[in-house]
Amino acid sequence: MQSNTACSEEERYKVRKLEITDKNKGFMELLQQLTVCNSVSDNEFQKRFEELKLYGDDHVICVIEDATSSKIVATGSVFIERKFIRSCGKVGHIEDVVVDSSARGMQLGKKVVDFLADHARLTGCYKVILDCSADNKAFYEKCGFKEKEIQMVKYFI
Amino acid sequence: MQSNTACSEEERYKVRKLEITDKNKGFMELLQQLTVCNSVSDNEFQKRFEELKLYGDDHVICVIEDATSSKIVATGSVFIERKFIRSCGKVGHIEDVVVDSSARGMQLGKKVVDFLADHARLTGCYKVILDCSADNKAFYEKCGFKEKEIQMVKYFI
Repeated sequence: MQSNTACSEEERYKVRKLEITDKNKGFMELLQQLTVCNSVSDNEFQKRFEELKLYGDDHVICVIEDATSSKIVATGSVFIERKFIRSCGKVGHIEDVVVDSSARGMQLGKKVVDFLADHARLTGCYKVILDCSADNKAFYEKCGFKEKEIQMVKYFI
Repeated sequence: MQSNTACSEEERYKVRKLEITDKNKGFMELLQQLTVCNSVSDNEFQKRFEELKLYGDDHVICVIEDATSSKIVATGSVFIERKFIRSCGKVGHIEDVVVDSSARGMQLGKKVVDFLADHARLTGCYKVILDCSADNKAFYEKCGFKEKEIQMVKYFI
């Protein structure tokens, strides 16, 4: 018989929207595995959190909290761009997807990307796009994406 | 002596923000040169215009109106994404840049892209990004951009 404290992988790693208390569960440390991400004060975090909240469904950050350790082990975001083309269509832009190095190989990245793509579809987007390195192309192909264009960048700092 | 009606190229092609009356100056027809862009009703246009206005400086569409013909001959948009990475940094995303086929070769595309990139810089972005075809790469390099990553897409319809 399974013990009450046992927890299936499905129950252990659920996707949900970012909550303000996630700062204390390793959310910023997780982002540091993605790119340059200096620590921010609680005030700065709260300010940005509130700003993003104003966008409602037009900007969603999701996380996976490990129910066993209460640590954030995966995240990603999507924002919805409103256009005039495609009969005033909408496009989802996926950004900042990362899985904790200790939690890889469990399809958590796919879970995050599927959640964000579903959100874009359900809010009426005709497509969802993202930029990735050549190394991550195969992963996004498994998530149903295809290579389309070239990403160009101009840095200010 | 120059006539009063004469107009330098600088005066003839000024960049400004989209106005609601631009629908009657060929704005949608210009977008049709970029991609699938069915005509939209005045009501649909107004609704989308008002939605975008709510974003203020976080979503700007600029146009170049030919002062001689009162026709919109170039456009592009930028929206500002607020992040937690890079000390709660911001990134500008440039989209939907197009120059009327009759007005090419006058650097109007560069004028639009410079305006949008300047907007991103002035609103505090640490970088501005865009996706383009391989054919347009050289143009964006002239605008100060460099190739970075791969754009991936998933279509819903």
